Amino acid sequence: MKMMNYKKYKRFETISLPDRTWPNKHIEHAPTWCSVDLRDGNQALVTPMKIEEKVEMFQTLVDLGFKEIEVGFPSASQIEYDFIRVLIDENMIPDDVTIQVLTQCREHLIRRTFECLQGLDRAIVHIYNSTSILQRDVVFNKNKEQVKQIAIDGCQLVKDLSSEFDGEVILEYSPESFTGTEMDYAVEVCDAVMDTWGASKDKKVIINLPATVEMDTPNVYADQIEYVSRKFKDRDRVILSLHPHNDRGTGVAATELALLAGADRVEGTLFGNGERTGNVDLVTVALNMYVHGIDPELDFSHINDVKAMYERCTKMKVGPRQPYAGQLVFTAFSGSHQDAINKGMHKYHERGEGIWEVPYLPIDAADLNRQYEPIVRINSQSGKGGVAFVMDTVFGYHLPKQMQGDFAKVVQSISEAEGEVSPERIFDTFTKEYIDNESPFKFIHQKQTDESEDKSHEHERKVELTISDHGEVKTIVGYGNGPIDAVKDAFNSNGYPYMHLLDYSEHALTSGSSSKAASYVQLRAKGTSITEFGVGVHADITTATMKAIISAMNRIHRRLNKQ
Amino acid sequence: MKMMNYKKYKRFETISLPDRTWPNKHIEHAPTWCSVDLRDGNQALVTPMKIEEKVEMFQTLVDLGFKEIEVGFPSASQIEYDFIRVLIDENMIPDDVTIQVLTQCREHLIRRTFECLQGLDRAIVHIYNSTSILQRDVVFNKNKEQVKQIAIDGCQLVKDLSSEFDGEVILEYSPESFTGTEMDYAVEVCDAVMDTWGASKDKKVIINLPATVEMDTPNVYADQIEYVSRKFKDRDRVILSLHPHNDRGTGVAATELALLAGADRVEGTLFGNGERTGNVDLVTVALNMYVHGIDPELDFSHINDVKAMYERCTKMKVGPRQPYAGQLVFTAFSGSHQDAINKGMHKYHERGEGIWEVPYLPIDAADLNRQYEPIVRINSQSGKGGVAFVMDTVFGYHLPKQMQGDFAKVVQSISEAEGEVSPERIFDTFTKEYIDNESPFKFIHQKQTDESEDKSHEHERKVELTISDHGEVKTIVGYGNGPIDAVKDAFNSNGYPYMHLLDYSEHALTSGSSSKAASYVQLRAKGTSITEFGVGVHADITTATMKAIISAMNRIHRRLNKQ
Repeated sequence: MKMMNYKKYKRFETISLPDRTWPNKHIEHAPTWCSVDLRDGNQALVTPMKIEEKVEMFQTLVDLGFKEIEVGFPSASQIEYDFIRVLIDENMIPDDVTIQVLTQCREHLIRRTFECLQGLDRAIVHIYNSTSILQRDVVFNKNKEQVKQIAIDGCQLVKDLSSEFDGEVILEYSPESFTGTEMDYAVEVCDAVMDTWGASKDKKVIINLPATVEMDTPNVYADQIEYVSRKFKDRDRVILSLHPHNDRGTGVAATELALLAGADRVEGTLFGNGERTGNVDLVTVALNMYVHGIDPELDFSHINDVKAMYERCTKMKVGPRQPYAGQLVFTAFSGSHQDAINKGMHKYHERGEGIWEVPYLPIDAADLNRQYEPIVRINSQSGKGGVAFVMDTVFGYHLPKQMQGDFAKVVQSISEAEGEVSPERIFDTFTKEYIDNESPFKFIHQKQTDESEDKSHEHERKVELTISDHGEVKTIVGYGNGPIDAVKDAFNSNGYPYMHLLDYSEHALTSGSSSKAASYVQLRAKGTSITEFGVGVHADITTATMKAIISAMNRIHRRLNKQ
Repeated sequence: MKMMNYKKYKRFETISLPDRTWPNKHIEHAPTWCSVDLRDGNQALVTPMKIEEKVEMFQTLVDLGFKEIEVGFPSASQIEYDFIRVLIDENMIPDDVTIQVLTQCREHLIRRTFECLQGLDRAIVHIYNSTSILQRDVVFNKNKEQVKQIAIDGCQLVKDLSSEFDGEVILEYSPESFTGTEMDYAVEVCDAVMDTWGASKDKKVIINLPATVEMDTPNVYADQIEYVSRKFKDRDRVILSLHPHNDRGTGVAATELALLAGADRVEGTLFGNGERTGNVDLVTVALNMYVHGIDPELDFSHINDVKAMYERCTKMKVGPRQPYAGQLVFTAFSGSHQDAINKGMHKYHERGEGIWEVPYLPIDAADLNRQYEPIVRINSQSGKGGVAFVMDTVFGYHLPKQMQGDFAKVVQSISEAEGEVSPERIFDTFTKEYIDNESPFKFIHQKQTDESEDKSHEHERKVELTISDHGEVKTIVGYGNGPIDAVKDAFNSNGYPYMHLLDYSEHALTSGSSSKAASYVQLRAKGTSITEFGVGVHADITTATMKAIISAMNRIHRRLNKQ
């Protein structure tokens, strides 16, 4: 085996914080959310969004409940400049929503940014410069003081231009590549910016601490956040914001642990769009809170609509295993999972309103308006629970337990040959196997009479059953305590040998007076161990049962003739 | 805004572990890896793998370095049974690889499992039963003692059958839905299994602790692992294995933190395939170690081949933002990122062999054999750094700094109108703009004579330059210290007014004696502020320069005529 040259890498050494407190905490409320879909998300697209697409996405973000939305980097892109002008000129920004614009700490870019904002009541102006050891060295070739001065000068210019600006300006400062920066130096730069701005408890600055590139396990980011949070000169003048990326696949975790560590605000995108591996996925972070009983303050109750908008505007696809939104995340193929889900759902409904607890389903798909998609899908790995679940939830047939295994074997032989079996195919197979068995015996007509008053037996029932027997129409008569008993008697007393009733159940198929009923019977051929199920469906429940009996008889007949 | 009903959920309360030690640790070596692609991964596919596909995947897993591979649930699926028989009968399992088979703790399934293994030297027999509060209640309707007894009975039967089995049997036991189980009870069940087995330091049992459904932030899983790791009766008889899922999008993080907490082994899949949101992605966990300078003991040096195999066998797609393997994860569209990557790569190569440190690229794409894919792609968000990077790395043209901005504007106007601009399109545009300018002046021929010996100037050069001037062929003569000087003199002394040379550079385009050279010049039209670049390419470097000068002259001519 060729060895990969792992020796060309090393871990970035950062602070250690043995007295960290975050692992003892739980997330208790939603942070301030800031969507950066229209900036960080947009800049990473093969085809960046057009203005109409940006407008559509902006309106969706507002509908979802975002109160802070980074809308672009207007000084770097004419399209973003024009889009922001559309938002302002066409009055598209609700009063309770603040737009945010990004700019580097460079004079001509900051001036151009302010030009773009003219006429706006309130904006977050987000300035940044890169502070990491690596970028100071290889990109900027500047020392710590020089890099800090870039931030101070940028802040001073924003302050000067704000004083001439009609609306309110909220400052956001990002020491870009924060996680690769010496923590004490990051604090020093942020404090210098806040001093320059004249920040106070009543004039807070958003200090945004990006994991520009995710560099370590997520607990390390949390340590860094708790560390700087303690070190700021005055924590009360800081809105501590996170901006995690996902290079190590742990962006969601880093966000959650850093929230435990004291962050107030999170910047991210829908479905984790963004540079390279993407930004943190805010849908997942918010719904992770939701399933812990915390109000996420974002509305994903129509997640498929959000997904459709996202895919339309960005030309990206949400993957089938993406938490909450992926096509397969509410799907169980495995038999034991399907069985447990089946039982869990029944228990949940039995209990009535209450806490959601269903095995393998951490969230009720209905809460995201996904209830019409199949949870249980049938392939060769599925078992009786799954097939029963499909028959139950999709078609309303509550198969008796014994029958579930019988039918699952039929379906498995199809799936082993053909792969996934659709619900329709399952239903067709069910009908063909258990309902449509009309040879050699076929139900034609029945008539029942209640003879209880004329006889010694209480409530004795008389059935006149008309069938086709090998093509010949016959009417046979039987008596019993009820119709099943009477039908059994009719067959037994007319020379039909098959009638040992092992199991019987029935239920209405749909609600309402015009509904049909389904009846399930299991018969054993007398003097043999051969058993078969039959199913009958009819508006009259006794007719349904008689049809079920005749279907089972036909199946037994077929089996006997095969042997 | 419609409020989502978050009150129907609650967090599962588990142990608290204030004296946890894992957050002070770092991952220092790879765990034992166990691939469950052929079982957990396979059971979640819309179309489960065929035997040939399973064989192909098995062989790839072996090539990647997996020493433990769960190959199926043979008692539940005929295809998996048959596949395992192929592996055994056709001697496809290398000596240093152990296959693992899953079975529930049920007698007929365990017996069937052993039938399947006949003839094998060594196998891990993996038994499980669900121990969570929820599953005990809604699925099994059994109390703690009864559920523990299922595990003990299963273990005893495996022990009995092992004594009759020719090969070695290693026991693995999973308390399924571990994270939803009371931790002390989980330890009690695992210890009971190990007692039954007769486990010892020399006869270890793999205790696999699944996050069957991911239920909390990843630090909680780590706390649970550290807790049970301390509580086992004898930790030395345990190989502590993880089996994380990804319902909250934090499966990789949970794995990493649980490794800090003392786990020895990880079960997962390539690219995180598996039920619902999938299992933990072992590619990401392994490469996260790699970029920290740790030998991952898995070989992903040809990651695109692994991805292609995966997509072929599973019919699933690896998403474009999937860490390490996704199509876009080494791509930078943003101008400032491109610029930093450009500078970082130059520094890295300048330094020679050493530690990889390049902004925005946590791993060298070449290590995964992805070096031929474009890192820098150009859309309307890109700047001069990106365009210069493409011209440099793809085509070998080292554009002078001044020219980078000039050309980037040309490319940006295309990208704003058309979206992403391909490298080929960039090169065509470059050629059209700077090289193919042959009107009104066109280079035809040049002849140089060294006249230094005949004149007062040292090394004076004479150039006879033949050009087409508005269609008319002319030969003009000039003298200078070198060819550029002489060409300048030829134009100036023959009534051509454009010649102020602002900048000049040249380089070989390819290595070897037959290589061509590229020459870049920037001219200013005398008496104006109009400047233009021109580029010439020719096997003779002086000819290249003359062509560059004439190209720039033509561009200035065009500009002056437009005004």
